[in-house]
Amino acid sequence: MLNLTGQQFIGAERTGSGEASLLSLRAVDGKPTGWRFYAATPSEADAAACAAQAAFADYGQTSPQARALFLAAIADELDALGDDFFDIAHQETALPLARLKGERARTSGQMRLFADMLQRGDAFIPRIDTALADRTPLPRPDLRQYRVALGPVAVFGASNFPLAFSTAGGDTAAALAAGCPVVFKAHEGHMATAELTAGAIVQAAARTGMPPGVFNLIFGGHIGARLVQHPAIQAVGFTGSLRGGSALIKLAQQRTQPIPVFAEMSAVNPLVILPHALAARGAQIVQDLVASFTLGCGQFCTKPGLIVAIRSPTTSDFLSRLCEAVSQSAPQTMLNPAALAGYQQGVARREAHTGLTPLAQGRCAPEQASARLWRAAPEAWLAKDELLHEELFGPSALVLEADDEQHLLALLAALQGQLTATLHADEADTPLARRLLPLLGDRAGRLLFNGYPTGVEVCDAIVHGGPWPATSDVRTSSVGTLAIDRFLRPVCLQNAPAALLPPALQDSNPLNLLRRVNGTLTRSPVQP
Amino acid sequence: MLNLTGQQFIGAERTGSGEASLLSLRAVDGKPTGWRFYAATPSEADAAACAAQAAFADYGQTSPQARALFLAAIADELDALGDDFFDIAHQETALPLARLKGERARTSGQMRLFADMLQRGDAFIPRIDTALADRTPLPRPDLRQYRVALGPVAVFGASNFPLAFSTAGGDTAAALAAGCPVVFKAHEGHMATAELTAGAIVQAAARTGMPPGVFNLIFGGHIGARLVQHPAIQAVGFTGSLRGGSALIKLAQQRTQPIPVFAEMSAVNPLVILPHALAARGAQIVQDLVASFTLGCGQFCTKPGLIVAIRSPTTSDFLSRLCEAVSQSAPQTMLNPAALAGYQQGVARREAHTGLTPLAQGRCAPEQASARLWRAAPEAWLAKDELLHEELFGPSALVLEADDEQHLLALLAALQGQLTATLHADEADTPLARRLLPLLGDRAGRLLFNGYPTGVEVCDAIVHGGPWPATSDVRTSSVGTLAIDRFLRPVCLQNAPAALLPPALQDSNPLNLLRRVNGTLTRSPVQP
Repeated sequence: MLNLTGQQFIGAERTGSGEASLLSLRAVDGKPTGWRFYAATPSEADAAACAAQAAFADYGQTSPQARALFLAAIADELDALGDDFFDIAHQETALPLARLKGERARTSGQMRLFADMLQRGDAFIPRIDTALADRTPLPRPDLRQYRVALGPVAVFGASNFPLAFSTAGGDTAAALAAGCPVVFKAHEGHMATAELTAGAIVQAAARTGMPPGVFNLIFGGHIGARLVQHPAIQAVGFTGSLRGGSALIKLAQQRTQPIPVFAEMSAVNPLVILPHALAARGAQIVQDLVASFTLGCGQFCTKPGLIVAIRSPTTSDFLSRLCEAVSQSAPQTMLNPAALAGYQQGVARREAHTGLTPLAQGRCAPEQASARLWRAAPEAWLAKDELLHEELFGPSALVLEADDEQHLLALLAALQGQLTATLHADEADTPLARRLLPLLGDRAGRLLFNGYPTGVEVCDAIVHGGPWPATSDVRTSSVGTLAIDRFLRPVCLQNAPAALLPPALQDSNPLNLLRRVNGTLTRSPVQP
Repeated sequence: MLNLTGQQFIGAERTGSGEASLLSLRAVDGKPTGWRFYAATPSEADAAACAAQAAFADYGQTSPQARALFLAAIADELDALGDDFFDIAHQETALPLARLKGERARTSGQMRLFADMLQRGDAFIPRIDTALADRTPLPRPDLRQYRVALGPVAVFGASNFPLAFSTAGGDTAAALAAGCPVVFKAHEGHMATAELTAGAIVQAAARTGMPPGVFNLIFGGHIGARLVQHPAIQAVGFTGSLRGGSALIKLAQQRTQPIPVFAEMSAVNPLVILPHALAARGAQIVQDLVASFTLGCGQFCTKPGLIVAIRSPTTSDFLSRLCEAVSQSAPQTMLNPAALAGYQQGVARREAHTGLTPLAQGRCAPEQASARLWRAAPEAWLAKDELLHEELFGPSALVLEADDEQHLLALLAALQGQLTATLHADEADTPLARRLLPLLGDRAGRLLFNGYPTGVEVCDAIVHGGPWPATSDVRTSSVGTLAIDRFLRPVCLQNAPAALLPPALQDSNPLNLLRRVNGTLTRSPVQP
């Protein structure tokens, strides 16, 4: 049976004060699941940040191999979570069991991917420029650069991925892999799920001899603001709304010492269908596209929310089929009543908007969301009308029809930053695809061809990022091994005595790393 | 003879409107050199940003080899600048000719370093994860990641390095190397120097067939704010004061689309002398240290402005010698009358401050700066008194004496972020050095041993960066090849047809790049 205390995880302690007034709710009807949680007090938030800072002294100096064992142990603990765990996660999110189990596999797989990278030891290429004592007019000193952990990281998880983008999700994995302790602010939509996941992480930390405070978790609504303002916190990871991310960024910038916020926020993920692809496989695209934008009730950050094509009789036929498919789509339960209310309000605003024309609506059911499809007026789109450009969280999409190729380019040039942009193009579409690619590449972190953006592979090559407002830092990714870059910084040692060099920078290259030595990539020792 | 028009460089045009009301001034006495400049109008600032954006369409797609030729041509043009150039640069900055020629060599050398890196083609390691069609439960798509240029960059140069951190300085070199066009806002302290340098860059662009607008320059005082707010600008490079950097960051954050500002701002660059080193070579350290903090009239961002030691009779003796050396140091002309006024005000504030005790003053001369040394009260230091912690631009330093090793650790823990931290340690100091290292490493981008931080080597391993307020982004460097990272972002192509893959990601690896293919670093082609 589940063993939940509803308390914070702060270093080696579990604490909670006052009433356990935060209620875990069932997604399906908003009724209490029965589990209750203690809202962290300001001093508990501070204590969690301090526990992370205390842990950083040791954890920041651990070897990559030691951290790899820790991450692999977390993966094992996650994989050991049983039916009770999935039952409560399902209650809290309404996500189907198969989906939750798949997401668990993805989450433990992500921990193992980082563990493998750390074991491999080649995430970064140390740089060594050896001394040139005889250089004129000035000698060159010995300079050696490696990467070190930033410090304690505050992480805010998302509601829509209670595992993969939450307590033990990508931000937590990347921060821990980098050597940064984590303070996680639990999402109120799945607090019981969060407590059980945190228990798995803390268990893994104990098993692998990591310092208490390497992972901490606090519950509460507004307590996250205090966490971001705490001087011990050196970076923030966030997945959620544009409004939420912007608020955290503002707080982080107002600190005496501003810190980076890596926020993944908002995208409509355009999907552009070029004429030959449309003609050749329009019917198949209709099926797959509706499946993609209604997948998980449209609650994916990569939901294709904008469908773009060039006007033609073929396109008209395609749109008729699309409307037909949407109208047959089944209603679904959203993550929680607030998400449903947000979707319904967004739908109402769009219904009343002159720049949008309703095209289709899916089947309805009480307390569930039904799919929606609108046609966007190109003039309103080009005028950067907010309602047309902003994400609507839920099973909806807009259709945007271009008059011709030139108009298509103009419409796409008006796009904001995106996580993804998708191009359906057959071989005969290649000339037009070539013209669109630089434009889409400027506006998205991932470009897909003849596929659907929902589903983000966790690997070395993935980029889950993009220009604002998709994320707050276009130079990073929040998924895959690239995500570790966010939590590392370079340090250069000049003329350091051999006895004080870290292993990564020692002449003998004891870690057998690939290094850039005097401009050349090599695993060879440095010759004195 | 010098050919200066005082006009902006905007794309292929030179423009100027109204009166040429900006005066180039002689550093030594603030009198006009005779050269006059047109302040850019708001529409000229916009035009410069638009010219950069127009150039980006082509320049962002150039091959690394083409950009390498451009950068090498800039280096050649810089090296061809003659005596007229150095004469005006000397007039505008009071920097000695030998220093200016050394700085020119460093500046052209920096362009060549980036050119070499681009030629080598191994600045970045593309990542390829090939498709796994038979994987269960879901197949893996083909994913390929490379880096692309961010877009037009606005650069603000520093007064103290009219070449190396100005028009053709590190930020410009890194942005151009990345494929980003530049709009440079000329520093008012050396406008004639800036115009001549811009002419060299534009000449090189023409010679190597780069698009007009790849480099633009505007003159003016407050026009930089408009530039940072222009939607075409995607990042900002800045070297200067904490106040100036903070103002630009605020503007950049207030944009509809916030953009990163890479600002190098403020540091006191602590230099810690451990007991055995002090005993063994205190006399030598006195000489070298005074030479370092008065070098270039103390106008280096890496000036060692804080000297830290543990109290002892040896330390007292060392401090006596240090005071003696300071009192004999010669007065120097600062970069301009405003810099001198700022230094004098800073000196006056420190003289009146109860947390600081005057220890020594260098020789005086009218219109020149004399060296200053104060003792800082440890209590005021630990209380984070601003005047003790902030940089004073000019030939001054503070002395901070610790009671013992524990006190030393506490004093250093109170340090803000720094560009550098220096440790003088002999072999017998190693145990204490080991305790200090993690603490200093948390607070500085470069750690020096038994040396002096003035002088920043331009190479692969250098880090010229550090935690706030040293810079606005601790994860980067503004000097050396690492600086290119600031202006690149990752893009991932998923299931891209072979015909649409860029050379860096093609199966055959036509650029012979080191790539990470399915987790392994290799130059081999991808096997289909």
